[in-house]
Amino acid sequence: MKNNPAIILVNPQMGENIGAAARAMLNFELTDMRLVAPRDGWPNSRAVDISSGALEQMPPVQVFDTLKAAITDLHLIYATTARPRDMIKPVFTPRAATENAQKFLESGKRVGFVFGAERTGLTNDEVALCSYIIQVPTNPDFSSLNLGQAVLLVAHELFQASDETAGRILDTGHSPPAAQEIFENFFSRLENELEVGGFFTAKDMKPAMMRNIRAIFTRAELSVQEVKTLQGIVSALIGKKKATRK
Amino acid sequence: MKNNPAIILVNPQMGENIGAAARAMLNFELTDMRLVAPRDGWPNSRAVDISSGALEQMPPVQVFDTLKAAITDLHLIYATTARPRDMIKPVFTPRAATENAQKFLESGKRVGFVFGAERTGLTNDEVALCSYIIQVPTNPDFSSLNLGQAVLLVAHELFQASDETAGRILDTGHSPPAAQEIFENFFSRLENELEVGGFFTAKDMKPAMMRNIRAIFTRAELSVQEVKTLQGIVSALIGKKKATRK
Repeated sequence: MKNNPAIILVNPQMGENIGAAARAMLNFELTDMRLVAPRDGWPNSRAVDISSGALEQMPPVQVFDTLKAAITDLHLIYATTARPRDMIKPVFTPRAATENAQKFLESGKRVGFVFGAERTGLTNDEVALCSYIIQVPTNPDFSSLNLGQAVLLVAHELFQASDETAGRILDTGHSPPAAQEIFENFFSRLENELEVGGFFTAKDMKPAMMRNIRAIFTRAELSVQEVKTLQGIVSALIGKKKATRK
Repeated sequence: MKNNPAIILVNPQMGENIGAAARAMLNFELTDMRLVAPRDGWPNSRAVDISSGALEQMPPVQVFDTLKAAITDLHLIYATTARPRDMIKPVFTPRAATENAQKFLESGKRVGFVFGAERTGLTNDEVALCSYIIQVPTNPDFSSLNLGQAVLLVAHELFQASDETAGRILDTGHSPPAAQEIFENFFSRLENELEVGGFFTAKDMKPAMMRNIRAIFTRAELSVQEVKTLQGIVSALIGKKKATRK
């Protein structure tokens, strides 16, 4: 079983935000939600509605009276807060924090991320219970993040810290990528037809022009089917030209 | 002026989502919002309410009848879509896409990110207008992201791609970090007092024990004030011990 960090919401006010946080958690495979003294009690039907099924699919949310009670089993605790405090604690970006947390998780340690109430955030005493602070770098003139959004950003960064999806994938689907031989067959034919069509007005420029045309098509990373389509385009254009010339 | 990418919402249904998207945009310094045929027309008072002031602070939202009309001035266009299509286009993670987009933006090119309607997403014809696809890696069993959340993730990644906030900052506030001399004064005193107190039962272990104790305090990256506090702690503990011995 994956070692799953806890998301701890302290005094959340609105069911909407609890639901949005739960949805964001499950989007990124987090399922350990803990609530500290939620204003409207628990369960909360509005939260369930907004979670789009996440709260039904996750293990039951645990509810605690205090933050101290909610974190007893954790080894490493991050407080997410927009405001710097009169307390000397390292402040991490979500990215740096979650990369660090991921290493802890992999070594079997339990990690928690604590989020304060919508308007008031965490108290100094609550921040004091946490090892580190996470502060999301934002527009300094418009920095207030919604609670559900803050949970989403941390959950996404956590997922990214262990996700191995390639940054860029080109899936050519049913048709495989074209091997070089197939591409060169097309390219030689194109060159011949361009020669016939009088494309190369300055002979000495031909090699450079062919290199530039080649760049267009190599950049496209063609599939076998796409090379066939290009062959068809050349055939059609030759036919069209002949028709025009009549 | 910063070269600001456009966020383009195609057929957005709910004012809430337009407002949440606008708030997320301004959180990360994006201000070019474009709407293609929003279901409930424009302006939309629900969107304004949910945006927490973002829509009032941003330049007016531009509204278009078609996606093609909304992107005429752009050089590089990303379609954000959860579903792979029967179309051969490179698929990027938000991180890889925004790092790439950032380089384009820095060279003065205009970039846009296109998001489809809440339930139906983008049509194949709409995806065909875009250069690249962005797909957010998520929990495969619970992958559906809310529209506002999708905009937030892309906006955050874009901001991160150019933001220079250090991953970890330890701000010691009014009290500067302790220079080594101040720390060593404390540490020698601690060593002496531990010697007096009979802490080192096995003499040959003393160097290793002192190294381990040193590690606790060097890891803490102490401020001048904190070293004073530790000196006070030692003084108090010595006093206490003496009181106990009476």
